[in-house]
Amino acid sequence: MGQASTYADAGVNIAAATRAKAEIKRLARRTFTRGVLAGGSFGGLFRLRGVRQPVLVSSIDGVGTKLKVAIAAGRHDTVGRDLVNHCVNDILVQGARPLFFLDYLALGRMDEALVAQVVRGIGRGCRENGCALIGGETAEMPGFYAPGEYDLAGCIVGVAEAGRLLPRGIRRGDLLLGLRSAGLHTNGYSLARRLLLEQAGYRLEDRLPELGATVGEALLAPHRQYWALLAPLLERRALRGMAHITGGGITENLPRILPPNCAAEIDAASWEWPPIFRVLERLGPVPLAEMRRTFNLGIGMILVVAPSKLNEVAARLRGREKFFVLGRIVPGRPEVRWR
Amino acid sequence: MGQASTYADAGVNIAAATRAKAEIKRLARRTFTRGVLAGGSFGGLFRLRGVRQPVLVSSIDGVGTKLKVAIAAGRHDTVGRDLVNHCVNDILVQGARPLFFLDYLALGRMDEALVAQVVRGIGRGCRENGCALIGGETAEMPGFYAPGEYDLAGCIVGVAEAGRLLPRGIRRGDLLLGLRSAGLHTNGYSLARRLLLEQAGYRLEDRLPELGATVGEALLAPHRQYWALLAPLLERRALRGMAHITGGGITENLPRILPPNCAAEIDAASWEWPPIFRVLERLGPVPLAEMRRTFNLGIGMILVVAPSKLNEVAARLRGREKFFVLGRIVPGRPEVRWR
Repeated sequence: MGQASTYADAGVNIAAATRAKAEIKRLARRTFTRGVLAGGSFGGLFRLRGVRQPVLVSSIDGVGTKLKVAIAAGRHDTVGRDLVNHCVNDILVQGARPLFFLDYLALGRMDEALVAQVVRGIGRGCRENGCALIGGETAEMPGFYAPGEYDLAGCIVGVAEAGRLLPRGIRRGDLLLGLRSAGLHTNGYSLARRLLLEQAGYRLEDRLPELGATVGEALLAPHRQYWALLAPLLERRALRGMAHITGGGITENLPRILPPNCAAEIDAASWEWPPIFRVLERLGPVPLAEMRRTFNLGIGMILVVAPSKLNEVAARLRGREKFFVLGRIVPGRPEVRWR
Repeated sequence: MGQASTYADAGVNIAAATRAKAEIKRLARRTFTRGVLAGGSFGGLFRLRGVRQPVLVSSIDGVGTKLKVAIAAGRHDTVGRDLVNHCVNDILVQGARPLFFLDYLALGRMDEALVAQVVRGIGRGCRENGCALIGGETAEMPGFYAPGEYDLAGCIVGVAEAGRLLPRGIRRGDLLLGLRSAGLHTNGYSLARRLLLEQAGYRLEDRLPELGATVGEALLAPHRQYWALLAPLLERRALRGMAHITGGGITENLPRILPPNCAAEIDAASWEWPPIFRVLERLGPVPLAEMRRTFNLGIGMILVVAPSKLNEVAARLRGREKFFVLGRIVPGRPEVRWR
């Protein structure tokens, strides 16, 4: 064209980015909690108060290939909640309360509407967890992402008193209580998509009687948050440990919190798999051991409870949450023994 | 094939992921500082000590399309440093010292060697900044990234005493000192790649006499860290503010730290652009205003210094770092006035 080159010519849409930034700011402001300080110029500021011996507990994660389903369904307001809830659960199991969150959203071409939908979901997730969205990066990366595609990651920072980190004191005889997941949460999507969408040839809008929902609805069910439910139990020191059941299933996640001389015995008959997992197992067919180390199988969180605290924990959960006594801690190596 | 389905069949290579994880752990351990606590099961643990009124300062960022250059050059050990240094500089300018870092690396297919290279760069960046790599996520996302491509983001958390956040007290008459960048740092790559690689048709291995380097070397010069140089000045309260010159150039970054009644007057003749920027300007041709709000033009960090502190600051920098007196703070709106 013979014209001078600008950054916009190179595929970076600065005006759209500026508008998206204003909307993100507005959505983020709605999540602000007492600790957030105004005036962060290059980074977010959070004033830490009321903790005597603070241990910062942090985690970073993505949404994984669940994003593919959201993108195919044109539904972008759930993946943000998935992300925040996943991250919050990861620090909750260490005894931490969430303080703040930062997100990274990368896309090929700035799309204000898409960015607003994604950040709305992040904002909702943050509010549900009492956690402030104090930072983020929206990266326009021409040539990295196919049109309409994006990647999303986020980082949570929380705090615990040094003496109250979990797990603490897990021993033989402790009980394992399972809390329901809401579907696959954010793990196992590469296999689930392959089985449902490629192998069986379902479309996201197909309604499966067994699921009582469309395939898309079942796959996009948001990752649950357990913070509001469990924070009071943390406060009262009623738990010895918690395991967030993510990639690797119960088989690989529960051992992460076991001391060297403890195994977890799980009674496979103590709960029923939700229909989506039966469908996936049948479609493969997926071997049982593979199901157990890929999917959460309907259990999103496991609590380790001393027998003497069972009544207190049950009283808190009753009427709020159905739970399953999955098994107990037994002597052995840190592993899951399925019975 | 009639065989049962497993997660690995769906394109997720668990064994390679496990090996990569072990290498990441080893590299991360080399960055550990006093604050890191062992035993984080689902998230990283960092014990905060010696701060009376802690303000946590955090930032999340990516490497942007500089990654494309690294990928094309098959050189993956520099982008991690870029990322850490960019993030550390963002919180340094608010007066914070870095505590810990978490990274997010997403790729289409697990590649242990590539992951190890990337994380080695992150680890080096962390060690240079006295910052611990305490968490990360390596996401295998089949179908999201083209073969050999990946995205990389990271989150830094640092701390400052509440009373010592920057900027603080910037006023008319303060001096603006510029510190050199080492090339483009991590901004303006979409335009730079277009001009050099598409428009001019250079290859990364082409040596340009003006640059005294190949195009690839010039483009991959790592983002500088200023932490080690500037931490003593922070400690002595010798600075009123700092601006990290990233996307938006001096034009857009310097105003971010200016109070409502202050402008920044910059003498454009006070330093020379490094050759890479002259080449880019000429290739466009890129209008001067566009150069100024896209690239750092050789200035990676600007310090705001009270005249009474100039000698102290100059004494610290002398022999360690060449600096330029770029201009001064004048009455006005928060904007840059180029002279």
